Amino acid sequence: MTSTTASSASSELALSPASSASSAPSASSASSASSASSASYASSATPAPATSASSSLAAKASGTNTQPVPVNPPHISLLEAPEIGTASAAIETPALVLDLDIARRNIERMQRATSAAGVKLRPHAKAHKCPDISRLQLAEGAVGICCQKVSEAIPFVAAGIRDIHISNEVVGAQKVRQLAELASEVRMSVCVDDPMQIDALAVATVVAGSTLGVFIDIDVGQHRCGVSTLEQAVALAKLIVAHPQLELRGIQAYHGSNQHQRSPEERNRTAGHAAKIAGEMAQGLRAAGFPCDTITGGGTGSAEFDFAHGVYTEIQAGSYVFMDADYASNIYTGELTFEHSLFIASTVMSVAVQGQVVVDAGLKSMSVDSGLPWIWEQGQRSIALTYAGASDEHGVVRPLNAEQAPSTGSTEPTGSSGSTTSSASAPASVDDRSLPPLGTQILLAPGHCDPTFNLYDRLIVVQDERVADVWPIAARGMSW
Amino acid sequence: MTSTTASSASSELALSPASSASSAPSASSASSASSASSASYASSATPAPATSASSSLAAKASGTNTQPVPVNPPHISLLEAPEIGTASAAIETPALVLDLDIARRNIERMQRATSAAGVKLRPHAKAHKCPDISRLQLAEGAVGICCQKVSEAIPFVAAGIRDIHISNEVVGAQKVRQLAELASEVRMSVCVDDPMQIDALAVATVVAGSTLGVFIDIDVGQHRCGVSTLEQAVALAKLIVAHPQLELRGIQAYHGSNQHQRSPEERNRTAGHAAKIAGEMAQGLRAAGFPCDTITGGGTGSAEFDFAHGVYTEIQAGSYVFMDADYASNIYTGELTFEHSLFIASTVMSVAVQGQVVVDAGLKSMSVDSGLPWIWEQGQRSIALTYAGASDEHGVVRPLNAEQAPSTGSTEPTGSSGSTTSSASAPASVDDRSLPPLGTQILLAPGHCDPTFNLYDRLIVVQDERVADVWPIAARGMSW
Repeated sequence: MTSTTASSASSELALSPASSASSAPSASSASSASSASSASYASSATPAPATSASSSLAAKASGTNTQPVPVNPPHISLLEAPEIGTASAAIETPALVLDLDIARRNIERMQRATSAAGVKLRPHAKAHKCPDISRLQLAEGAVGICCQKVSEAIPFVAAGIRDIHISNEVVGAQKVRQLAELASEVRMSVCVDDPMQIDALAVATVVAGSTLGVFIDIDVGQHRCGVSTLEQAVALAKLIVAHPQLELRGIQAYHGSNQHQRSPEERNRTAGHAAKIAGEMAQGLRAAGFPCDTITGGGTGSAEFDFAHGVYTEIQAGSYVFMDADYASNIYTGELTFEHSLFIASTVMSVAVQGQVVVDAGLKSMSVDSGLPWIWEQGQRSIALTYAGASDEHGVVRPLNAEQAPSTGSTEPTGSSGSTTSSASAPASVDDRSLPPLGTQILLAPGHCDPTFNLYDRLIVVQDERVADVWPIAARGMSW
Repeated sequence: MTSTTASSASSELALSPASSASSAPSASSASSASSASSASYASSATPAPATSASSSLAAKASGTNTQPVPVNPPHISLLEAPEIGTASAAIETPALVLDLDIARRNIERMQRATSAAGVKLRPHAKAHKCPDISRLQLAEGAVGICCQKVSEAIPFVAAGIRDIHISNEVVGAQKVRQLAELASEVRMSVCVDDPMQIDALAVATVVAGSTLGVFIDIDVGQHRCGVSTLEQAVALAKLIVAHPQLELRGIQAYHGSNQHQRSPEERNRTAGHAAKIAGEMAQGLRAAGFPCDTITGGGTGSAEFDFAHGVYTEIQAGSYVFMDADYASNIYTGELTFEHSLFIASTVMSVAVQGQVVVDAGLKSMSVDSGLPWIWEQGQRSIALTYAGASDEHGVVRPLNAEQAPSTGSTEPTGSSGSTTSSASAPASVDDRSLPPLGTQILLAPGHCDPTFNLYDRLIVVQDERVADVWPIAARGMSW
């Protein structure tokens, strides 16, 4: 769908909401199907009151004075897609923006280094959830992709990607069935760390008539998933090879938290420890007569060390294409450094409170789990402004190094757990002329790229200060 | 669309991805439209290399070995919708689940208290983005709804809701035009705190031929948006009434951070201060000859105090329907308390690391800006288990009051800014028999309901331990 078409749909919807919705079946039709009043998750100490107001709510809700709700009408979520050629400064905000030339340089740099190390690159799609980005990576030499959940893989299969590793355990009947069905279409693999997972995979692949690759997940120090002894790994290997439709392809040895250690010495040391465990596990499995062709793991923060330790055959990095404030806070001393290509375009929408401005991008436009975003100016982190606090749809921007409280208003505390603030406080006598005026577009580098991508339906691709393309973030929200 | 239909679409897609996608136009067709190599946001110190590999990437990406990507195909995002009647324990996870009977009790309780205070209730839809919930609120007596962004209002207009206040400033040509168009369909209003906003609204409403309500936004202590002096408010009022198609309806006086102060005395004191400022502003505007019929503001944490201070004519609360771990951390001493109705259903997907289990809901299934979720058991916060850390798609669950490091694995630090951890650390000699086994469904009460709703396309509505309905979170992602 072109952005022109999307704009047309927008106008039509705004002017004729009833007719737009009339062809969609009611999503509320079953809301009175159950008349029971007991609350499944409620404490038994608080029984539901049997008032007539309560019992008639569902009936009222499906009354005739409202129109049926379309189920996630796709034309609505595409309303603001900019037309190709739009000046990047005119993109309606908030919007997730990719500088394509920078992203390409990052993709080339990682592929070159990985190939030079004699290792395969299987970039992680959980970072972006966007098949168009995977295509760039595959075109450059990646052997396939990783996904973190079964549903996440579906849009990538639909986009024609033929080799996907689910770098995670999968538990749940519907998920396992879907995985087995996907494996009948494309080359798929998955991780296990428990015999029950293998049993479920074996049954589902027989039903689907598919062959599925299996990796034994090894805990190399993160202490999240994965087995920690050779005895456990051998026991799982025995169960896997008992099923001819399950192919034991090797081990996964991923250390997620090591990616974010700031010191390169720490990352190298931890990566070395992980590689040592992984190498011993692989050797032990082979000595016990099991195949272990692939040792997969590693990430943007550890890749250069993973290459050097010479154990991994495949690297799962993802964030290197984009960078984020957290990854940029690592110290890099080697050649494998990357540039910021991903930004949230925001707009100054209030300048009423002295000593600050407010932008229109908050908690619903970025994930702050790894910290607040950086303001991006002139190709680098701003030396003048800081994003000082986020609430649902607002971001407070203040001059950097401001040291005192605002001179306007009352003495109420401004901090709260309902809004996330940095340690920077507001200035008393800032020169407001140095703050950007109402309507200014402000670029933000997100704190954590992966969950930020997961908030957007599309990626605005920019080249030469213009919108060059709009790519669907097709796996957005696909977390099961 | 019923869940049965969604399931059919699922099977079809998995088996025939190419045919599913073939009718969608390519989203990549314009990716080579711009051949310029300069990077709009890049530092000039890092020019783009002019290698042939780089310049041919776009061409390779639109090559013939991949199928076109459907633009957010709606049948994919609905894959896992459970059928009506499914046992709640069998819901595929992660899923956002609403206990309907509890939600109804909360809706009734707030409406009863608001009506008893002689105040109007205009519940905030930014909390849930789900028109079906607004319908329940309107059926119970709400006068309309609030939205925080223009795009957020669109699915509610499409759902037949006829009175919407945008409780925020709106800056941006496309947004303002859309707002003016919506105002020709339903009763709309918006906030201003700057003359330029009024100018833009005046032009757009003339073009659209619509009438738009306008509220002057007052800073009552939060120091986010809003003017702080009567002179500023009067100046804005003069500009507004100069345009007959703009209706000055009153003032907005919202103190967001006060909603989350733990002490009821603090909330009461801050609410009293906000009410005093709001009352003086309203009186001053009226004395200057301007209308000020409505004073809107307040929220779940302050409503009981806002009623008592007698200044607000309209309350904007939203979270009261659901509660979350943050709101539940407030201390409530009055009658206006609410029960948890909103949960994330998750599943134990790894039990391999001693002393903990891992669930399949992480940063992409909940917002952790206001803290990690609570584990919910037997109608209350678990006294046995705690959600100790989140990464993108994982949550680590440990016994409560565990005090020592895990006995397995290496000595690497487990904390990192790439994963969010609580202060609880792992146990040394926990009895693993007390931990839930693989496949167990675990309910989580999210830390912050608003941005958590924004991660899901649908709400699974449960009554009597069964799925009673599936409601679209139709404004999910609508942040412009």
